[in-house]
Amino acid sequence: MPETYYVVSMETHDLLVKRAYLKRGYNADEAAAGARFCSSAAYYGIRTHNAIKALHLDELFGSKVGRWKPGARIEKIKSRFAAAEIWNANFKLGQAVAYEAMDTCMKLADQYGVGMVSVDNATHYLWGGGYVMDAALKGYLAYTNCTSATSEVVPFGGKTPTMGTNPHSWAFPTQEAVGFPIVIDWATSTVAMGRVQVLKREGKLLPPNSAVDAEGNLTNDPNQAVALLPFGAHKGYGLGLIDELYAAYIGGGLPQLRGTALGDPGEKRASTFFFQVIHPDALNGNGFANHRTQRQNVKAILADILGHGNEKCILPGQPEANSGALSKQHGGLLFTKAEVEELNHLAAEISEPPWNPVNFKTVQI
Amino acid sequence: MPETYYVVSMETHDLLVKRAYLKRGYNADEAAAGARFCSSAAYYGIRTHNAIKALHLDELFGSKVGRWKPGARIEKIKSRFAAAEIWNANFKLGQAVAYEAMDTCMKLADQYGVGMVSVDNATHYLWGGGYVMDAALKGYLAYTNCTSATSEVVPFGGKTPTMGTNPHSWAFPTQEAVGFPIVIDWATSTVAMGRVQVLKREGKLLPPNSAVDAEGNLTNDPNQAVALLPFGAHKGYGLGLIDELYAAYIGGGLPQLRGTALGDPGEKRASTFFFQVIHPDALNGNGFANHRTQRQNVKAILADILGHGNEKCILPGQPEANSGALSKQHGGLLFTKAEVEELNHLAAEISEPPWNPVNFKTVQI
Repeated sequence: MPETYYVVSMETHDLLVKRAYLKRGYNADEAAAGARFCSSAAYYGIRTHNAIKALHLDELFGSKVGRWKPGARIEKIKSRFAAAEIWNANFKLGQAVAYEAMDTCMKLADQYGVGMVSVDNATHYLWGGGYVMDAALKGYLAYTNCTSATSEVVPFGGKTPTMGTNPHSWAFPTQEAVGFPIVIDWATSTVAMGRVQVLKREGKLLPPNSAVDAEGNLTNDPNQAVALLPFGAHKGYGLGLIDELYAAYIGGGLPQLRGTALGDPGEKRASTFFFQVIHPDALNGNGFANHRTQRQNVKAILADILGHGNEKCILPGQPEANSGALSKQHGGLLFTKAEVEELNHLAAEISEPPWNPVNFKTVQI
Repeated sequence: MPETYYVVSMETHDLLVKRAYLKRGYNADEAAAGARFCSSAAYYGIRTHNAIKALHLDELFGSKVGRWKPGARIEKIKSRFAAAEIWNANFKLGQAVAYEAMDTCMKLADQYGVGMVSVDNATHYLWGGGYVMDAALKGYLAYTNCTSATSEVVPFGGKTPTMGTNPHSWAFPTQEAVGFPIVIDWATSTVAMGRVQVLKREGKLLPPNSAVDAEGNLTNDPNQAVALLPFGAHKGYGLGLIDELYAAYIGGGLPQLRGTALGDPGEKRASTFFFQVIHPDALNGNGFANHRTQRQNVKAILADILGHGNEKCILPGQPEANSGALSKQHGGLLFTKAEVEELNHLAAEISEPPWNPVNFKTVQI
């Protein structure tokens, strides 16, 4: 059944989001990065990580509780390595840090073929796919991982959650080949804890092998589920460990204490970020079959994978591209009525008149 | 039930393997790399990728059919990037190329913090975990991926195998923290085609969601299975795509034709390799809690993950470490009777007297 969406111009949206960040004490650059990120998430249909979530996280973990530091300055740690920077983000807004880190990685990749930025004392960057997609749209291969704000995942074979849902995000500049960048972006748990809550409200069961109860036993009852399992058994467990290991080398603290006030007060509580960008020329062996260029080769290989009866397969990044096409077609960001109401809480927070839905064009999708 | 293993000294093993490679036309350096690799696989209990498999692959795809080129020289492609090398391996023995690429990555990482080598016209490197483990034992974070020799995996939602089982291998220098390097190393298919053959012989069923029949329908009957599925649905599919994309940027050909003589003769048929090494100092934010050093922080984080009731969990790399400890304890490489017989085919090939099992010490494990 089609749903009604309100078309909100980016300008209108961004102004509200910027003012909300400014009101909470963030500076102009941070507010701009925050708005840019929320716009991008909404544009590409990432409804779980739009402005509502971003500002809500800031309430739960951020400036409202004194953990994220508006106006904080990034401190670059001395390093003897030309292609790698290490930053102490000092709890600066994650979106601002992530955009700047990705820009730095691209500059390093222009010079060295590959560049990376490791970030300690990080906050939350919400949707890693957004940053790597942005770099891919500029022509680069990009990757990021981070540790989640809290630990909700049980190591394979265990019973206590001591790992985050730890996402990985990769993007490839395939827009000339298939019309959009391929973006591979997911958490390493089978489902998100948010999904468990939704299924609980809806009275539905969890997928198999996705959660454990308080005793560490498998359960598909969302009312019993207290912790998540990695996807793909030992393979997803390994992928989740990678984020914890990067954090361990960068400067992260004990995973079980992350995002909590429990235990030894001398322990650290924040996430870490890792970013890496590769210039496509730094991979180019220049020996493509049938005189293809590198871009033509990427196109030919993707056509081969999705040929031969596989025409109905979709590529990772296609759903985001489809949402982006809808946003473009309708000339703005698409929000449901419930989302407009949520965004109006922000308007109230900054003492502005609420958006009146009748002022927005509506579309049925 | 314990099985009997014959303890073969590395010297005895390596001499046989070297001579087999030399007999097939490989030069001394290639034969040494080939033997080093097979020793390492046997030492760490990687029974699927020891000398028997290595020399068998060389028969199927390699020097015996004229595809791999003994004595080939690696050609370094001109690149403007200091931290990235691009090699045309000219079908040189994969193990020799992989060791050299990893050495180069470590040197680049010493200088730039991160180094990478992309390899076109590659053969087969067998067990990616071996190369990254080796770099981790030397103190680095290492990663490799490659495209498999043939395409056996159906993209998520498709019916025709147009992707390889495309493995990923990561290793971390955690030996001081947990006694061994963490090695995360697996193919992106749910099972290997070799596993399908074993289950067929044993009259057993495949795990759910691991294979499709000739019509592209799910099957758990190994007799009906003609192609594999990615592990973890769309997530494993994305991970398998990553290898195909690296190949596409490096110089690989159409996946469906890889390892075959089908289709357009102008298309390429070989795999590609990608290697990357990071120096741990290039991640080090130097702000570890409770005055821990970076190594102490890695140890504390891993202890936290495997604490709190998770003591029975194992870390990726633990099984390899356990096998290595057994090899060390018994003073040699452990082979079953069937494996000794297989290795004696190599002795026959090089006109040497076969190994007599009575000359080897035996152990029950």
